[in-house]
Amino acid sequence: MNYKNRQKKILKLIEEKEIDGIVIISNENIFYLTGAPLNCNKFLYLSRDGNLYIITNEMNYQEIIDSVEDVNVIKTENFIEEIKKLGKKVGFENKKISYYTYEELKKDLELIPIGNYIEEMREIKDEDEIKLIKESQRITEKSLEESLKEIKIGMSELEIVAKIEYFMRIYGAESYAFDSIVLSGIRCIYPHGRPTRKIIEKNEGIIIDIGVRYNGYCSDMTRTVFIGEPSKNVIDIYYAVKYAQEEAIKNAKPGITGKELNEIAINVLKEYKLEKYFNHGLGHGIGINVHEEPFINKKQEKKLKCGNVITIEPGVYIPKVIGIRIEDMILITENGNKNLTNFEKMPIVL
Amino acid sequence: MNYKNRQKKILKLIEEKEIDGIVIISNENIFYLTGAPLNCNKFLYLSRDGNLYIITNEMNYQEIIDSVEDVNVIKTENFIEEIKKLGKKVGFENKKISYYTYEELKKDLELIPIGNYIEEMREIKDEDEIKLIKESQRITEKSLEESLKEIKIGMSELEIVAKIEYFMRIYGAESYAFDSIVLSGIRCIYPHGRPTRKIIEKNEGIIIDIGVRYNGYCSDMTRTVFIGEPSKNVIDIYYAVKYAQEEAIKNAKPGITGKELNEIAINVLKEYKLEKYFNHGLGHGIGINVHEEPFINKKQEKKLKCGNVITIEPGVYIPKVIGIRIEDMILITENGNKNLTNFEKMPIVL
Repeated sequence: MNYKNRQKKILKLIEEKEIDGIVIISNENIFYLTGAPLNCNKFLYLSRDGNLYIITNEMNYQEIIDSVEDVNVIKTENFIEEIKKLGKKVGFENKKISYYTYEELKKDLELIPIGNYIEEMREIKDEDEIKLIKESQRITEKSLEESLKEIKIGMSELEIVAKIEYFMRIYGAESYAFDSIVLSGIRCIYPHGRPTRKIIEKNEGIIIDIGVRYNGYCSDMTRTVFIGEPSKNVIDIYYAVKYAQEEAIKNAKPGITGKELNEIAINVLKEYKLEKYFNHGLGHGIGINVHEEPFINKKQEKKLKCGNVITIEPGVYIPKVIGIRIEDMILITENGNKNLTNFEKMPIVL
Repeated sequence: MNYKNRQKKILKLIEEKEIDGIVIISNENIFYLTGAPLNCNKFLYLSRDGNLYIITNEMNYQEIIDSVEDVNVIKTENFIEEIKKLGKKVGFENKKISYYTYEELKKDLELIPIGNYIEEMREIKDEDEIKLIKESQRITEKSLEESLKEIKIGMSELEIVAKIEYFMRIYGAESYAFDSIVLSGIRCIYPHGRPTRKIIEKNEGIIIDIGVRYNGYCSDMTRTVFIGEPSKNVIDIYYAVKYAQEEAIKNAKPGITGKELNEIAINVLKEYKLEKYFNHGLGHGIGINVHEEPFINKKQEKKLKCGNVITIEPGVYIPKVIGIRIEDMILITENGNKNLTNFEKMPIVL
């Protein structure tokens, strides 16, 4: 990863803001700038002179030392006191920091907000990042493909998720991008629901929304599959969602706003009188966080840019009846986009 | 769960502080007070008159409605604006809230810090909670027991975690309490390391630190097992860690501080000249969060109380040589404690 280049951009901000350095508390931002493990407690301080300091505790010291280069790693029991030794006028992630940490730091420091500066850098993925996101997605796809062969009537949602996650680990998932979602029948209406002991019955739909983390990068895909032939009504809804997704993907390119893209999906659903059952945003950026900027929803005025990786995931949720969602990850390119998801999108009947 | 009783304690605080109500942003605290799903975005507002309001978005509305009783559920796109309609002088979780949310709320509200009031309530587990923690731990134990039968030389860390998590899901895990840790050989020195494709070789140790979430409650257990007979040196270290753990457990009872308990484990390790390789705290409270108060470490002046559920997990990590950790969950009782972990603690040789 090109950490040096990323760090240079932070140094530019330090110069612009005329500050001594920047303290970074977000594990994702620290990983982006140094490669230090996401799961270790730490702060990062970038100094105006170009020096980097990771402040951590005894427990995480060795793991960090073994994973970063050209970074001073400081072992301490009080991260905040250590930061105070490194600068006086210090930039901070005002959208990320806790009120408590802010109050403690500001006792001795002049704190200058840097907003979403690093998150905005992260919106544009470089080639190395795109490669990892693709590899992450390949793991997710292979796991679903293998698992679908084994899904049968009479299995529970938990048994299905057990099989999927088993393959995810076998194929190399270092962890999960989020709590796997496997819901069946009328439970499909919960966009963020969790799998239970509920048994899959004949003619039910199953929403499978899954993703892994691989070398720090997340994948995210949703398919709705069926046990036994679905009714004509269900198939009609499925195709409406699929059509909404395809129209949105067709229009995803540099210059269009998240709001406009969201509207395109809603307009398709309107043709089927289903728009009132679509109760969430159309998608989100994805990278080191599974949900990150740019979000694709009715409030988003930001224009898409070449290098964004976003999900497109319209859904229709009719209480007590059915839920259907289809989700792909796409990379915004110079002239349009490239779908990073290689998985059957026609209704899969098991 | 006795939500009404818990809510009454919050109302008492509202009266004491002479405020209009309290806004709660921590998903764990909201779950504790209402049972609303942990994975949904929301704020909770408890009003002086005893009314409860959950403020959520359209996406999570149905799932929350279907899971709470006697709570007004408000659907909005702006949680902060909704809170402002409900009170003027409002308590808030100053240890939990983000700086950003604080700044937004304080534009129109008088904000009164409530510190760790709810977290302190949560330190004392009631019978229903203890039952769930035990059930959560049974899932973890059964999963490890089944998996150990299948671990062989030549498998990777990821293959082992695949098997363990498969059983966890089969036995009812709604999710994982934390990212499962399965490390082998010299990788065992990373207390929070992640499983990789590294192959298990003959005579290596394997640290397995795992836990599930069941009906909201976490479990947490560590065992260090061996592939092939470990050397005498390794066995000696194992028994030192085991002895340190047993001595700490023997002394865990109401009235002792976390610091004192930590010291007991360190003193045992000192007898073996191993104390410098023990680089983390002895344990932590566990419940809705896998890591919560009371923490058991060298800084903890708080005394243990009847109803605390804590882990006791000494470890020895010798860089380039070996890592060993043994962890149980115990319940502090009137006269001492009850070990909630039922799993072999003698060295397991596979």
